[in-house]
Amino acid sequence: MHKNKGPVYYSEYLLLDKLLNCQEPLSRKYQTDSNPECHDETLFIIVHQAFELWFKQILHELNSIISDFSLPYLPDESLGKINQRLKRIIEIQSLLVPQLTILETMTPMDFLEFRDLLIPASGFQSVQFREIEIKLGLNTKERFNVDREFFTGRLNTSDKNKIETTENEKSLFHLLESWLERLPLTDHKNFNFWNKYQDAVEKMLNQDEMTLKNNLASLTEKEKNIQLTNLENTRLTFNSLFDEKSHRELVSTKKRRLSQKALLNALFILLYRHEPYLTLPFEILNNLMTIDENFTHWRYRHALLAQRMLGNKIGTGGSSGHNYLKNAADNNKIFLDLFNLSTYVIARSYLPTLPAELKAALNFKN
Amino acid sequence: MHKNKGPVYYSEYLLLDKLLNCQEPLSRKYQTDSNPECHDETLFIIVHQAFELWFKQILHELNSIISDFSLPYLPDESLGKINQRLKRIIEIQSLLVPQLTILETMTPMDFLEFRDLLIPASGFQSVQFREIEIKLGLNTKERFNVDREFFTGRLNTSDKNKIETTENEKSLFHLLESWLERLPLTDHKNFNFWNKYQDAVEKMLNQDEMTLKNNLASLTEKEKNIQLTNLENTRLTFNSLFDEKSHRELVSTKKRRLSQKALLNALFILLYRHEPYLTLPFEILNNLMTIDENFTHWRYRHALLAQRMLGNKIGTGGSSGHNYLKNAADNNKIFLDLFNLSTYVIARSYLPTLPAELKAALNFKN
Amino acid sequence: MHKNKGPVYYSEYLLLDKLLNCQEPLSRKYQTDSNPECHDETLFIIVHQAFELWFKQILHELNSIISDFSLPYLPDESLGKINQRLKRIIEIQSLLVPQLTILETMTPMDFLEFRDLLIPASGFQSVQFREIEIKLGLNTKERFNVDREFFTGRLNTSDKNKIETTENEKSLFHLLESWLERLPLTDHKNFNFWNKYQDAVEKMLNQDEMTLKNNLASLTEKEKNIQLTNLENTRLTFNSLFDEKSHRELVSTKKRRLSQKALLNALFILLYRHEPYLTLPFEILNNLMTIDENFTHWRYRHALLAQRMLGNKIGTGGSSGHNYLKNAADNNKIFLDLFNLSTYVIARSYLPTLPAELKAALNFKN
Amino acid sequence: MHKNKGPVYYSEYLLLDKLLNCQEPLSRKYQTDSNPECHDETLFIIVHQAFELWFKQILHELNSIISDFSLPYLPDESLGKINQRLKRIIEIQSLLVPQLTILETMTPMDFLEFRDLLIPASGFQSVQFREIEIKLGLNTKERFNVDREFFTGRLNTSDKNKIETTENEKSLFHLLESWLERLPLTDHKNFNFWNKYQDAVEKMLNQDEMTLKNNLASLTEKEKNIQLTNLENTRLTFNSLFDEKSHRELVSTKKRRLSQKALLNALFILLYRHEPYLTLPFEILNNLMTIDENFTHWRYRHALLAQRMLGNKIGTGGSSGHNYLKNAADNNKIFLDLFNLSTYVIARSYLPTLPAELKAALNFKN
Repeated sequence: MHKNKGPVYYSEYLLLDKLLNCQEPLSRKYQTDSNPECHDETLFIIVHQAFELWFKQILHELNSIISDFSLPYLPDESLGKINQRLKRIIEIQSLLVPQLTILETMTPMDFLEFRDLLIPASGFQSVQFREIEIKLGLNTKERFNVDREFFTGRLNTSDKNKIETTENEKSLFHLLESWLERLPLTDHKNFNFWNKYQDAVEKMLNQDEMTLKNNLASLTEKEKNIQLTNLENTRLTFNSLFDEKSHRELVSTKKRRLSQKALLNALFILLYRHEPYLTLPFEILNNLMTIDENFTHWRYRHALLAQRMLGNKIGTGGSSGHNYLKNAADNNKIFLDLFNLSTYVIARSYLPTLPAELKAALNFKN
Repeated sequence: MHKNKGPVYYSEYLLLDKLLNCQEPLSRKYQTDSNPECHDETLFIIVHQAFELWFKQILHELNSIISDFSLPYLPDESLGKINQRLKRIIEIQSLLVPQLTILETMTPMDFLEFRDLLIPASGFQSVQFREIEIKLGLNTKERFNVDREFFTGRLNTSDKNKIETTENEKSLFHLLESWLERLPLTDHKNFNFWNKYQDAVEKMLNQDEMTLKNNLASLTEKEKNIQLTNLENTRLTFNSLFDEKSHRELVSTKKRRLSQKALLNALFILLYRHEPYLTLPFEILNNLMTIDENFTHWRYRHALLAQRMLGNKIGTGGSSGHNYLKNAADNNKIFLDLFNLSTYVIARSYLPTLPAELKAALNFKN
Repeated sequence: MHKNKGPVYYSEYLLLDKLLNCQEPLSRKYQTDSNPECHDETLFIIVHQAFELWFKQILHELNSIISDFSLPYLPDESLGKINQRLKRIIEIQSLLVPQLTILETMTPMDFLEFRDLLIPASGFQSVQFREIEIKLGLNTKERFNVDREFFTGRLNTSDKNKIETTENEKSLFHLLESWLERLPLTDHKNFNFWNKYQDAVEKMLNQDEMTLKNNLASLTEKEKNIQLTNLENTRLTFNSLFDEKSHRELVSTKKRRLSQKALLNALFILLYRHEPYLTLPFEILNNLMTIDENFTHWRYRHALLAQRMLGNKIGTGGSSGHNYLKNAADNNKIFLDLFNLSTYVIARSYLPTLPAELKAALNFKN
Repeated sequence: MHKNKGPVYYSEYLLLDKLLNCQEPLSRKYQTDSNPECHDETLFIIVHQAFELWFKQILHELNSIISDFSLPYLPDESLGKINQRLKRIIEIQSLLVPQLTILETMTPMDFLEFRDLLIPASGFQSVQFREIEIKLGLNTKERFNVDREFFTGRLNTSDKNKIETTENEKSLFHLLESWLERLPLTDHKNFNFWNKYQDAVEKMLNQDEMTLKNNLASLTEKEKNIQLTNLENTRLTFNSLFDEKSHRELVSTKKRRLSQKALLNALFILLYRHEPYLTLPFEILNNLMTIDENFTHWRYRHALLAQRMLGNKIGTGGSSGHNYLKNAADNNKIFLDLFNLSTYVIARSYLPTLPAELKAALNFKN
């Protein structure tokens, strides 16, 4: 516990003299009688600065989480701490959309008044946000449907280098995958969990088929075919969990990203989340999905804001921001595999009962 | 003011005896020793019933708004009342997503436990929600990318008739269009507002072009071309406001829906929203957009929930709900033209000054 | 897993014919030419019905939680389930304030139009909400500052009996206390945890005293005295944890409610929440506090609404609702002791390190 | 419209180099092997800096609103702008509570680890927040139940001077009062509005009395007396609107703050809010109440946070923060009179019909 080192004054501790002098509207700098300062530019600056402050905090948390996950062995006690920090990131994210809503209190007409001054600056140049994406595991090198040049071309050399350095570090996605792989969840001599699971799936699908057949009478020919195809697809989908070849195919077409081992362990955690030892691992997976979804949602809301401000006009950074952001919102899921896990879930009463020995072993040392 | 007609008791006034006996879980009806009642089915029922209660309230408000707009002449006093009721709908919508979040506290495993019992029922059979969509103005007859049969085929005859009756009534979209058309905003002998506006646009675009040229040096050849194309497109876009031919083309390709007259008056309201007489008309347009956006967002969140529950499995109604809902979220904008209005907005200082006579006339009798 | 028993139709499953016919505005029943139906009464009814639907769901969850806690031995696996259901209650509570906000879209003038018809009905007659309060552990028999007659006098015999029956059952508060008491957290032969804790507290308070003395120069005489008194009070407060006599005194003056054993175990859980075995117990305590706080907040917002609607006029139930609700918000904390726990917390680095044997034993069987 | 003055780079425009170097945790500065840097101190700093950024923005809006209201004549067009900026303040306030929630992700144990380093700094030293309170109209010179010395004694000379200068300027409360007084709403030769209103009140109260008498049979003696007293109080309360003596008494006991003229005009605006000319004035009053309520709520949540962090321990600023904040939340309403207006409201159908001449005159020039 740190002991007092002498009296502290609120505004000095927070460096308010510096912080509250970081707002320099260009419309003030260049004001003339016919072009006075734009009242709303201050808002524009402060909203973006608030984003950057919170991005700094998110990076602070991410770095500590990544550092824990980078250890060859993750002590049980760390899970609670990691989870607390993921929850903190989620709480911070809950500010992001309301901060956009504040910006929406500016009218397009008032924005157009000073927007020319900002060209060609653009939110795409936020190095901190790029770093967050990369550290989480967004594969920016292969960014879907987007010209990588578009981004890095806009950055100055120092920022470009920063991004490239970060891209070469292990991301949370990759560290999570390794951790999931080494969790000793289902490796037990006398109990092959996944065999039992495949049996249960088989039983369930057979029942689905029967239900379908019982309802066939009420369906048109077209619907009948749709349903039967759906069922067949479901079989193939479950199959892809265990069949190496179809797993590899999904990976190569970017429909799956985690290794088979990691994916199966993640599924096990989802299924047995009520076991006390799996509570924290499940929450960690769940919070990662929420973080992913929140950024997706924020990109989407950002796209709507761009449309409300500019319609189909060009953005200050020269992009038709709306369309880019909309695509980004659709395609930048990092933990895609975790979202898809529910595809492989079965009814609770069909879940294999875990033998006592496995339950005991769940006191894992990972 | 109504006077008391004798003592009233809380639970009798609210018909709680009836209301709180509308929850009949099928898993309770069919419970056996091996298949007990599912605790979470009650939640499933109550969430959906809460949706239906609020849909009833939204319809109550929509009907009163539509009835006001159907009058040949809309008295000024009605605008405040209409606006208040639109705001109420928005407040109600703010419950819709949190209600989905409550449903998400059910695990997929627990849902699968009773989901078979519900086949082939489906949320698509919510007649009240269909009615809301149709009354707002969603053109369900030409529903984008979706088989109309898919919907109506699932409804019983009485529900199908209800939907078709509603489809034949005037929607809020159409009534709003008529009201916008007859607002006497810019028709003045000695002042042709839209000519002045076109001049201002021209001035602004010329400036955009100069800004672009000043920055050309810092751009690659590819970027340069993108920017020049963007600028040309912006010119064409503004042109489409005034040129009848290109307006009709946009309508025929479903990129525009409002008549030219209605669109221009809506733009005028957006531009001069600070004029006291335009405050309420602007708020009405703005609230309609918010309502539209909120339903879009809700469909999107609904799609995410379906994915979290079932992954890529078939829904109880036989649809791959996730994909349908995602498409619906993308394509069911009703007041699309209002969202696009900001495309045609210019900087405040370029706005034509309204002459006193027009300002005076803004005391419109519509 | 339940199997399909034949086709189900959405509106029949949800009993919509019944549910959507539970809204009978009195102003419609008694409408005349001079006193037409009040548009807003439907809203008034539906808001209250939505509350009652959700109260039913909250009771459904509370009953299952109470039933689990009533077992002589609570299996580890139940903790996850209990926690999930507490979280569900919290999600449901998140609707309560927004539902009041919807009601606030009604103006006082419009409410007064039909409010006389409702006399003497009152929200205080919501039996379900009373039951929730009692089942959580609100000691309604000794309800602070309120005439018990005031409540029960307004209920009909059947409702009064219902309330009294519930009052005679064990509440969640009492079941939680028993569970906390029997958790074998700190009972170990060779390690007296609480002795070590008292040493740590002593060390911390001594340091606080030194910090204070170092800062005395910058304080006025008055402030100095305040600070020294504060410090002395802190010592006494910590003391009350371990000293039976001062504990009993706090209980008798209603400043403490839990038994000493339960309180200490709750504090232990708070302090070592990062130990995997204590994650779920901590979340349960934390969620109970959130539930408590949410209802407090809701009562407070309810009071504000009453003031916005009626000012200082009498309510339909004959109470000056605003003041009652405000008092209730201040004084109806059930898990007061959990909120006060942070009083007894010390800096992380001062926390006694748990010996391996105790950590191992934390794998509690309660 | 401002024209581009040369290329702008995102991080330079936002002064990120400076902004993101304003975080200097004391636990980092003083770190040793046994007392390492506290991870959570960064969060503590950034949360407070985010508050200060937003306070700066709120002050930016307040200053512009105060400057408009300070004009001897407030043009109609300004009402929309003022209202838009009030709504912006409300949107900013919606961040304040979630930012506290982020801070709550820090445990008390982790806070105690570095809290000694901060002594005697305190949030009470936020000069910007004080300025917001004073500019809104909080009468800090007579701050209820609080030692003024307590605040100003903690400030350095420069901050103290700043506060005192602000206290000597006209507050929004006072400017609003003047504006309300000079609105020519009810001054008309041939129509004495308030006489008519008093008649309507009389009619309504007589009916309340009859309703009460009809229900007397169902009441106990005690309840009967309560009700009759309530009714008598209501009469007295309405009376206080028009009777100068009782008005002055309320002012002298700080139960009322606005002048009688201003209060009556505010009531008129509330009653006839649906008249187009009163829409914006009503929204302005309503938004001021919301701002007031939001700060109240924030102080209250701040108090809860202090309790969650420290329990009854002393705060870093030497106050028992919890109790102070709780009192402040209860007693710092600025626009108290606006909240109480609903006391004087009557049913819509009892509202005097405005004669055409008054309606026409409502096109006020204030």
